[in-house]
Amino acid sequence: MSTQPSVAERLDTLRRSMQKFDIQAFIVPHEDEHLGEYTSPADERLAWLTGFTGSAGVAVILNDKAALFVDGRYTVQARQQVAEEQFVFLHLNQDPVTDWLTQQLPAGSRVGVDARLHSLEWYRKTEQTLAAAQISLLSLAENPIDLHWQERPAPSSAPARLFAETIAGESSPSKRQRIATQLRASSADALLLTQNESINWLLNIRGSDIPALPVVNAFAILYSNAALDLFIEPSRLDCQFSTHVGNDVSVYPADKLNDVLQRLGEDALRVWLDSASTNAASALQLQQYGAQLLEQPDPCLLAKARKNATEIAGMQEAHRKDAIAMCHFLAWLDQAVTDGLQSNEALLAEKLESYRLQQPGYLEPSFATISALGPNAALPHYNFRNTTPRLFGQDAIYLVDSGGQYDEGTTDITRTIQVGTVSDEIRRLFTLVMKGHIALSRTQFPKGTCGMQLDVLARLPLWQAGFNYDHGTGHGVGHVLSVHEGPQRISPKGSMTALEPGMVISNEPGYYREGSFGMRCENLVVVEPVEQSGEIERYAFRNLTLVPFDKRLLLTDLLSDEEKQWWNDYHSEVFLTMAPSLQGKELLWLEQATAAI
Amino acid sequence: MSTQPSVAERLDTLRRSMQKFDIQAFIVPHEDEHLGEYTSPADERLAWLTGFTGSAGVAVILNDKAALFVDGRYTVQARQQVAEEQFVFLHLNQDPVTDWLTQQLPAGSRVGVDARLHSLEWYRKTEQTLAAAQISLLSLAENPIDLHWQERPAPSSAPARLFAETIAGESSPSKRQRIATQLRASSADALLLTQNESINWLLNIRGSDIPALPVVNAFAILYSNAALDLFIEPSRLDCQFSTHVGNDVSVYPADKLNDVLQRLGEDALRVWLDSASTNAASALQLQQYGAQLLEQPDPCLLAKARKNATEIAGMQEAHRKDAIAMCHFLAWLDQAVTDGLQSNEALLAEKLESYRLQQPGYLEPSFATISALGPNAALPHYNFRNTTPRLFGQDAIYLVDSGGQYDEGTTDITRTIQVGTVSDEIRRLFTLVMKGHIALSRTQFPKGTCGMQLDVLARLPLWQAGFNYDHGTGHGVGHVLSVHEGPQRISPKGSMTALEPGMVISNEPGYYREGSFGMRCENLVVVEPVEQSGEIERYAFRNLTLVPFDKRLLLTDLLSDEEKQWWNDYHSEVFLTMAPSLQGKELLWLEQATAAI
Repeated sequence: MSTQPSVAERLDTLRRSMQKFDIQAFIVPHEDEHLGEYTSPADERLAWLTGFTGSAGVAVILNDKAALFVDGRYTVQARQQVAEEQFVFLHLNQDPVTDWLTQQLPAGSRVGVDARLHSLEWYRKTEQTLAAAQISLLSLAENPIDLHWQERPAPSSAPARLFAETIAGESSPSKRQRIATQLRASSADALLLTQNESINWLLNIRGSDIPALPVVNAFAILYSNAALDLFIEPSRLDCQFSTHVGNDVSVYPADKLNDVLQRLGEDALRVWLDSASTNAASALQLQQYGAQLLEQPDPCLLAKARKNATEIAGMQEAHRKDAIAMCHFLAWLDQAVTDGLQSNEALLAEKLESYRLQQPGYLEPSFATISALGPNAALPHYNFRNTTPRLFGQDAIYLVDSGGQYDEGTTDITRTIQVGTVSDEIRRLFTLVMKGHIALSRTQFPKGTCGMQLDVLARLPLWQAGFNYDHGTGHGVGHVLSVHEGPQRISPKGSMTALEPGMVISNEPGYYREGSFGMRCENLVVVEPVEQSGEIERYAFRNLTLVPFDKRLLLTDLLSDEEKQWWNDYHSEVFLTMAPSLQGKELLWLEQATAAI
Repeated sequence: MSTQPSVAERLDTLRRSMQKFDIQAFIVPHEDEHLGEYTSPADERLAWLTGFTGSAGVAVILNDKAALFVDGRYTVQARQQVAEEQFVFLHLNQDPVTDWLTQQLPAGSRVGVDARLHSLEWYRKTEQTLAAAQISLLSLAENPIDLHWQERPAPSSAPARLFAETIAGESSPSKRQRIATQLRASSADALLLTQNESINWLLNIRGSDIPALPVVNAFAILYSNAALDLFIEPSRLDCQFSTHVGNDVSVYPADKLNDVLQRLGEDALRVWLDSASTNAASALQLQQYGAQLLEQPDPCLLAKARKNATEIAGMQEAHRKDAIAMCHFLAWLDQAVTDGLQSNEALLAEKLESYRLQQPGYLEPSFATISALGPNAALPHYNFRNTTPRLFGQDAIYLVDSGGQYDEGTTDITRTIQVGTVSDEIRRLFTLVMKGHIALSRTQFPKGTCGMQLDVLARLPLWQAGFNYDHGTGHGVGHVLSVHEGPQRISPKGSMTALEPGMVISNEPGYYREGSFGMRCENLVVVEPVEQSGEIERYAFRNLTLVPFDKRLLLTDLLSDEEKQWWNDYHSEVFLTMAPSLQGKELLWLEQATAAI
């Protein structure tokens, strides 16, 4: 039995390494070499060093102090998990890391990073900002944390799963040809990919290296002739792999990436990479070896976001299974309220998970379930695991935001449910949130429209009453990949990517009253063409999520005739689709939950 | 009596100069050294060379051919004004000028420009794109057109008009201090301004150098201590000027700008300039002399856009006067329809202008009036001056988009008026356009919201029915400056500038059916804070334009109760505000035009 070192001991060890490297600061981000939102346990360096387990954050260690930078989602959690004696807590936005470094460090200081854990874009910007204060940024040959992390989990050696064309809808050679055509059009010789989602999509493979994200960790280089070098431990690929992906895929252990980058550089090739998602270490190596960098968005992003008919059918089937689980859970929950059951946020989440586990092809949650009662729901990213789960029975409403990875698709749904005595104020706010949800859901928009243009539709009813919510309205969702996927989103800020047929995106307005309650109404929708009824090519959203909203929370008088029509049409579709998959008390529950208003 | 050379002769002369300069192409934009939308007659080089009088366009002259690039507004006009034997017509978007040049010219070619007539941003991008095709861009020491333009109008020598603080609402020293504070915050020593609007705003001066834009042509350098060098013929400033602007303004003839740029460079100063609006010649000189360029948006843009209370009061008064003229015109028009008057688009525009001319303090139109009957209104920028004005009496609806520059403010209004037998299809479309206008007008939005977020509100009723319009929904409007002013706008593309109190912007959705009819409903509005009625700081639009819309074109059944309420509230406000300024038959007209629906 070993004793884990304390955070203080870990910081001490790290600081000794910093002296050896002659650096006065070391930056520890949450990200791994693939720069995704989720990482393997073996890559949770930030958690090892600080104890903070959130999905976004950066620690900066100086010789005599340290800071932890987190965003609004994690300010509470950070203070719960991390001791104030060792860390100051700062807000993660618009380069405060460099602000803090330039405030703390004298000119001539050296700041160390593991360049594999940062994007090229971040690296360059940070280097430039620090240089203005005469501080240099150093890419260390070794990550000092890796030197000291004794109990580090082994990297996953689980076999990659071959993702059948009957589920992917397109073969890997076909995908590679499509992307290679774009390479040739940009006069690029090769494309460097360090992000797992693009690589797993391109090769029609999946894995279990990372919780919630069913991928294998890998790197890849696609050539303009559609051949591909894949960097992954070869033993993780079974004998069918080569048949599955085609002959022109060569497999190398991950540590051979550098050799191939060197070859690309020595051949002075023109290499496409996305500086926002490619890790700086690989990109800088490539450049140092002599390659010409063509910095453009990863072409797999858009190709992956526009799902084909097979992928959409899979998403639909995953949503049908997920709706069975949700209907069982919601029917059980209504009964639990009637029975005055003893429970709490954690047990409720477990109950929901138990229903998902009954569904064939269910793999794992697509993210950590948000199960929040009363005031906890006012934190949009509340996590009952970081606190004592709140007891059931004392609050008016319950918010549950959850989703599943299934063999054929990915889901994400939020429902807000009456679990106590509800005030008219809550009903009014819920109705305003639903009016926004309905307005966005009903929109028919011209080809070329981006999410930023539509975002207001989900907010307007709240705005007119003097309310708002402080998060985006919709994020893209991957197909048996990350539940958060770009490039499209529906948000007041950001993406100018047009919404295109086949894109899956969430519709999730909400409202949060600090210390009191929170609500959110989330469906996933897919973009589809509208049959012509006017002069312009138009698209619309079709609901993938088919689960009743809680009509007990509505003030129906606030709904227009069109909005009531939408509500009744939606719930009639829910009933017709889900009734054949339910029996007994769940079917009875569905019948009353979908009855017309 | 002199004979003007033909376009062919002008091209011949230019081509001989091109040989002397050893260039194989010469680029002639519409813009002058100040890069505004409008130019002085003495700067209409594109019109002199090609005959094309539109407000946007570029000609590219090669030895054996020439091309004229115009946007969608001007495709018809260009073909009417310019002979196909001499020019090919191409579309002006996304760098087609460089595309065409690289298609036409072999490697090693030299392309000449007058760098004063292009922005630094354009110059750099063009230089880079051409370099990729091994074509070099040359900034010529002299513009060959200037060498040959015999009948060129003299530059304006009219005196600058001192713009009283009672109209500007803030003294020039105060404005200069405010901007100088921003310079110091950016560690900039100076700000180079080559655009007239910023300079005229900053010094509280106006002029008559350019039709529709009441400014004097000038250049300026503002220093971080709020002192300013103004480059303009000193004789154009009267003896009150120095008292008006303060002691720390030095005046130099325009041709001394280069000397001062040289001094800034030799002192190695850090000079702020906006690469999108500063002419490349000045910016490149500055850089060559050794200055350090700080490229950021012109700080005057936002300061100028946020109008102070005095400016808003002036805009309001200008709108009251303008509404008197519009009411007279619309009352006269209804009578003209009844009387079956013989008229045409040109005579209608003259009639409207005659009413504006009766208003005290009226200076000139704020842009060329669009007076369009029937199918001509389907061209959003139709200009009856470029064709035979269409006769009155044969069409259902008439579109008139016009505005005035007044002593105290600037207006811009579009009304669509029944002038014949109107189909239900036209009524339906007019009602959809008004529903969009009303939705945008009624919006209350949080601080921080930008125009791109709101644009959809004006389009949604059309979208849902399968229609759209192919222009932005709203543009900023200057205060006795350009009727088109940034940085804010309401558009599906572009500006992320938040709408702030004091900004004036148009609300002008429309609908256009090619070959048949066109309609647009435009008011100017000002952004104002909403008294708190919820949890967030909110802004709303207040109408500056107070002129009836044509209720005969409405299908009232398509309006919701809220929309009818807006219509009646607006027209009641129009009546209450305008009735005291009208008498007799105009008052009677107003009474019936503003009656409740």
